Amino acid sequence: MTYCVAMRTVHGLVFLSDSRTNAGVDQISTFRKMTVFERPQDRVLVLMTAGNLAISQAVRQQLSQHASASGQTLWTASNMYEAVACVGDAVRAVYARDAESLKKFGHDFNVSLIFGGQIQGSEPTLFMVYAAGNYIEATPENPYFQIGEAKYGKPIIDRVLTTATPLDEAAKCALISMDSTLRSNISVGLPLDLLVYERDRLQVTRFAHIDQHNQYFEMIHGTWGGRLKQVFAEIPDPAWGQTPAFETAGQVSAAGKVVLPPKVLPPTLQDSLPALQVQTLAQGPSSSTPGQ
Amino acid sequence: MTYCVAMRTVHGLVFLSDSRTNAGVDQISTFRKMTVFERPQDRVLVLMTAGNLAISQAVRQQLSQHASASGQTLWTASNMYEAVACVGDAVRAVYARDAESLKKFGHDFNVSLIFGGQIQGSEPTLFMVYAAGNYIEATPENPYFQIGEAKYGKPIIDRVLTTATPLDEAAKCALISMDSTLRSNISVGLPLDLLVYERDRLQVTRFAHIDQHNQYFEMIHGTWGGRLKQVFAEIPDPAWGQTPAFETAGQVSAAGKVVLPPKVLPPTLQDSLPALQVQTLAQGPSSSTPGQ
Repeated sequence: MTYCVAMRTVHGLVFLSDSRTNAGVDQISTFRKMTVFERPQDRVLVLMTAGNLAISQAVRQQLSQHASASGQTLWTASNMYEAVACVGDAVRAVYARDAESLKKFGHDFNVSLIFGGQIQGSEPTLFMVYAAGNYIEATPENPYFQIGEAKYGKPIIDRVLTTATPLDEAAKCALISMDSTLRSNISVGLPLDLLVYERDRLQVTRFAHIDQHNQYFEMIHGTWGGRLKQVFAEIPDPAWGQTPAFETAGQVSAAGKVVLPPKVLPPTLQDSLPALQVQTLAQGPSSSTPGQ
Repeated sequence: MTYCVAMRTVHGLVFLSDSRTNAGVDQISTFRKMTVFERPQDRVLVLMTAGNLAISQAVRQQLSQHASASGQTLWTASNMYEAVACVGDAVRAVYARDAESLKKFGHDFNVSLIFGGQIQGSEPTLFMVYAAGNYIEATPENPYFQIGEAKYGKPIIDRVLTTATPLDEAAKCALISMDSTLRSNISVGLPLDLLVYERDRLQVTRFAHIDQHNQYFEMIHGTWGGRLKQVFAEIPDPAWGQTPAFETAGQVSAAGKVVLPPKVLPPTLQDSLPALQVQTLAQGPSSSTPGQ
């Protein structure tokens, strides 16, 4: 598995990737998922890949050669839309070559990519590219993309990231998101590649290769977990019977409704009832079982 | 979609389920996923279901009737292992009746269940039951199960829940886990059913049906999100160039290694290199690109 996340704010772009691949739990390796195409003062383009490793590498290889269906390459593209079209073309070229053979072995053509950067004269842009070679662009309303094992790390991004978030804060958010993912899925692993692109710099100025000895990531790992536990402890536990909604079962609530769980009655009681065996099944949101 | 979570600690059991089902985003309904089988002073059994709603309801209906392959029912089972075997039998009975027909329409036999409770004379026990009718039991090392949309809400449980966690604290943890899931997946929705079973009580004493007006859940929703943001703000941002691991790109780190991203060179430079087009591809964890 893999986890990659990228963010676009008004200040620039953040890219973060892990480096674990696995084909079953007994075949785990380290492969870096991030590739940078840089010509200082002209363009910085960053590609991250998830899915089938052979496909990912083939796409990257295709892009690092200087040919595409349109004749355009990442080095000749005059803006980010031409550049992402090259990435889509590369995915389709690999599909044309490999998909049929993969299918014979029961494998889907499984790859997803994040591609972003800036080319002189155009804005920093971020795309998610699908296996079909089509793509979507990050917007102020949806300023980030994830590929791979995305779910564990999504809640924290949803809570803190906006298009106005400063770059270093966005990087911190990406690292916390990664920390949650590492904690819950063993198939995502260190080391990490973190690239923070400052708008209009047109070169790589901030990059870190983060392994288990990285002090900042260690601090995040320890502090975030510890502080979460502290916040958790500070929130009061539910007080049963004290608020209308947390009644002891069977008590009448302030709203005058009896709060009972959806219940199946034992046979002795049930046999005396006509047909309704499962009670309160499939009722509306505010339903509650009448007193039994 | 659905999200259900159940926990077993030394103090008892916690069950929490949402109530949203969907067949596509244009067909969303409310169905409660929790069913309670209770004979006070003798047994409290709780079933939660996720997956195909028709299968879930058929299993529940099968269990609320008084027959199983073994002749045993939830009401005659003398311990939790006999009870969970009834649940497995019910799943298999529904499979025998429906799976072939579902297959003709391209549907898998997709259902998963959490089943737990206590029968007089045996310990509180918690199981996860699979579509094949087999099951696993919660242990002190793995004190919880989730079914449905599990990933968004997993990190917080992994961080705070242990087998010694007090029941109300476990309930709070389940509600925070649900809050994270509701925030990130629109196909999980209120109202919630929360049942907290106190060890050896052998009846339902704590149950809450939680809708959007529930003050405690509203407090959790507001407080947790707000405090997370606060903790996030308190953690320092990465300080580039100040710690060995967060170097400005190209700088030599304290360890004497040059920290550069995996890079593809533009054609002019690349053409002068023999064959190596993609650099630093697939190197080990502590690799870094030598100066270029």
